[in-house]
Amino acid sequence: MEKVKARTLSGFMELPPAPQQQMEALLATLRRVYALYGFAPLDTPAIEAAEVLLAKGGGETEKQIYRFMKGDSDIALRFDLTVPLAKFVAANYAELHFPFRRYQIGKVWRGERAQRGRFREFYQADIDVIGDGKLDIMNDAEVPAVIARAFSELGLEDFTIRINNRKVIGGYFELLGVRDRTTEVLRTIDKLEKIGLEKVCAILRDDCGLDGAQIDGALEFVTLSGTDEEKLAFLDGRAHENALLAEGARELRAVVEALPSLGVAKGNFAIDLTIARGLDYYTGTVYETRVNSHPEIGSVCSGGRYDNLAEYYTDRKLPGVGMSIGVTRLFYVLQQAGMLNPAVNTAPCDAIVLPMTEDTAFAARAATALRAHGVRAQLYTEQKKFKQKLSYASALNIPYAVIIGEDELAAGEVSLKDMAAGTQARYTPEDAARRIAAAIESRAGEKLIKLN
Amino acid sequence: MEKVKARTLSGFMELPPAPQQQMEALLATLRRVYALYGFAPLDTPAIEAAEVLLAKGGGETEKQIYRFMKGDSDIALRFDLTVPLAKFVAANYAELHFPFRRYQIGKVWRGERAQRGRFREFYQADIDVIGDGKLDIMNDAEVPAVIARAFSELGLEDFTIRINNRKVIGGYFELLGVRDRTTEVLRTIDKLEKIGLEKVCAILRDDCGLDGAQIDGALEFVTLSGTDEEKLAFLDGRAHENALLAEGARELRAVVEALPSLGVAKGNFAIDLTIARGLDYYTGTVYETRVNSHPEIGSVCSGGRYDNLAEYYTDRKLPGVGMSIGVTRLFYVLQQAGMLNPAVNTAPCDAIVLPMTEDTAFAARAATALRAHGVRAQLYTEQKKFKQKLSYASALNIPYAVIIGEDELAAGEVSLKDMAAGTQARYTPEDAARRIAAAIESRAGEKLIKLN
Repeated sequence: MEKVKARTLSGFMELPPAPQQQMEALLATLRRVYALYGFAPLDTPAIEAAEVLLAKGGGETEKQIYRFMKGDSDIALRFDLTVPLAKFVAANYAELHFPFRRYQIGKVWRGERAQRGRFREFYQADIDVIGDGKLDIMNDAEVPAVIARAFSELGLEDFTIRINNRKVIGGYFELLGVRDRTTEVLRTIDKLEKIGLEKVCAILRDDCGLDGAQIDGALEFVTLSGTDEEKLAFLDGRAHENALLAEGARELRAVVEALPSLGVAKGNFAIDLTIARGLDYYTGTVYETRVNSHPEIGSVCSGGRYDNLAEYYTDRKLPGVGMSIGVTRLFYVLQQAGMLNPAVNTAPCDAIVLPMTEDTAFAARAATALRAHGVRAQLYTEQKKFKQKLSYASALNIPYAVIIGEDELAAGEVSLKDMAAGTQARYTPEDAARRIAAAIESRAGEKLIKLN
Repeated sequence: MEKVKARTLSGFMELPPAPQQQMEALLATLRRVYALYGFAPLDTPAIEAAEVLLAKGGGETEKQIYRFMKGDSDIALRFDLTVPLAKFVAANYAELHFPFRRYQIGKVWRGERAQRGRFREFYQADIDVIGDGKLDIMNDAEVPAVIARAFSELGLEDFTIRINNRKVIGGYFELLGVRDRTTEVLRTIDKLEKIGLEKVCAILRDDCGLDGAQIDGALEFVTLSGTDEEKLAFLDGRAHENALLAEGARELRAVVEALPSLGVAKGNFAIDLTIARGLDYYTGTVYETRVNSHPEIGSVCSGGRYDNLAEYYTDRKLPGVGMSIGVTRLFYVLQQAGMLNPAVNTAPCDAIVLPMTEDTAFAARAATALRAHGVRAQLYTEQKKFKQKLSYASALNIPYAVIIGEDELAAGEVSLKDMAAGTQARYTPEDAARRIAAAIESRAGEKLIKLN
């Protein structure tokens, strides 16, 4: 028979079993933490009507989207989780209760040019709070508090959520007299980290037409150093001159002052007046998250406040605030940077049960006892030599082997072998199960990420 | 601005928040039980090269598949999880260790005619064990043991996994002298439950050309009643006449005799010689699973043994055995039949924290304390009247409200309101957290499914 080459498309992550266990641990932690903060899970279809997905229209999105006809239907794969959320909220407005807090963890698809570390299919893990008409500023503190908790539980302690407010930037640039060029100026400032101060100044002068005093003012703002309190004091000092700046400064203060009460450690957040976020629809708070020891990774979680989630579908004003983790890319960079903790068990099971005789019934009962104690157990009954069976267990990094030979069978016991230590001792199946369960429990504190 | 209608495509399940919590519980139980039996998670792309997905080619699949061009690439959405598994195993053969036990829970897409209870996008939850060259028959018992455990943990105790073996059927019909018409005869017998005995006989006579003795033989076989042991005795009685029948009977006996040692209750499995399974590629053990009190649902989990998983990609013989739950359809029928346990909490959180004053810092600390005790907590800071806040909590079925007025604030305490009982008492935030955590714990035994 003519064979088809078994291949996976480029730009699509497909992990071998051991790293997939790490990915599952990552996803499970995000699900658990998101739920802990009172966010409800949402699961929208991968496929939507193209008209719905592209309601906002235009730009990069339209070029990258996987869009196709099925019969008479013009359909497409979702390219983010925000548009489906907007659709869901608009379509189910009457049945929902606001504020509506949802999380969604799922794949999205973008036909980007394939290159190393870029994926055409990737998981996003989003949280958003949607209000009906208005939404309290405390939500802008809750959202990064959830993300901080998630990163901490993953073991990624060394991060900083950088916080800014579009009103602060907008108001300040209005004050400088460049209100009409706010978008261009913001876009330019957004490139500060990428292209450096000098080039930013040149663009502000040559392309945006700012004069010397305006550039100085812009520079004073974006290079402002000091503590969060010092930055807030600087903003407060100018707040009486501009209402938008005053509002932004008030919001920014409310957010950073609430974070410690919400359990976020002082080192895990900071005001950064240079953060503007490229997306046009953020209107208030904006966030980016950096791993301090690995700045080259870029932002691992971003988001912000928007005035109108679903304006393409409804006249109702539905303001929201949210953050999104690009999980597939995060996992990829953690892997590449060697930041995944090797102490986390990636074996398919905790114990392998190896019957050495023809009698498999006692081995089956031993496996059942292990599972009753929550021990992930594989019953191995293939006709192989003992050495081959142990090699299989070693190759998969299975920590325990439960061996049942003639002697054990006669005694109604098992030999429990600690694969790493090489030690072995006899127990009843129940006792072996208890010992393994206790050993797993003692290692449960190991976190997925370990900084090197 | 012109609005686009916010709509979801027909045939695509999109659940409101409360039922979505039930669906998440279903998926979480399957993930946990599958892992408990030593199956490794696998996550393959939704999109594959069309050539890879359609390697087997032909039939219904090709008509239903979502296939399209992206640039020069002829690609398609997966329509099951078995073909991607075959591709994965063939592509990664050298790095895998056999037997390879994997589970995969993910969406698949089929452009079927939309009708009530039929979905174009649905979750499958598959387990398979793949051997290299050969695979021990004990695996054919392990696989239904996993499914039985999963259903039990879901609360669906009232099920029977019906087991048969294609070699038994094939051998028996060879014995009757209708070997050349085995496929047609099997297909006809497969319809027994749907069209009844009389029509099956007519087809066997008129279309398959069986004579009276052959039909009698066929009928004796498919209407055989009695215990599993009696059925095995019947097969053993004829086994010396046909080698294939003998092999099938031996395998069938091995499977049903192993199930009790693997923890499967006697009532949860039974030999059913009428089960043949439509799919052509099953070669040994076959399974179907019925909910006894709801036969109209049909099989909720099916599968079997196949000789050659990846024959379209590789010359290596990779036999396997697996079962698959159609999760979306199962969830739909459970919902329709009123079998989802109303005692399982579907609220987005266990407790809502309601500050009644301007001071939100203490409320934030209270929410943080709740979360530290594993209590899913929402901090509600919108400017609403007390009554509206409580209505919000009631509408979402949130079981506890943690109320912080001026008195509580002054005392450093909270008022804990049991929303169902209507009772209320004052505690420190820590004590309130402990009380709620204990109450959640005491209800953790509630299972998702409750038969009525």
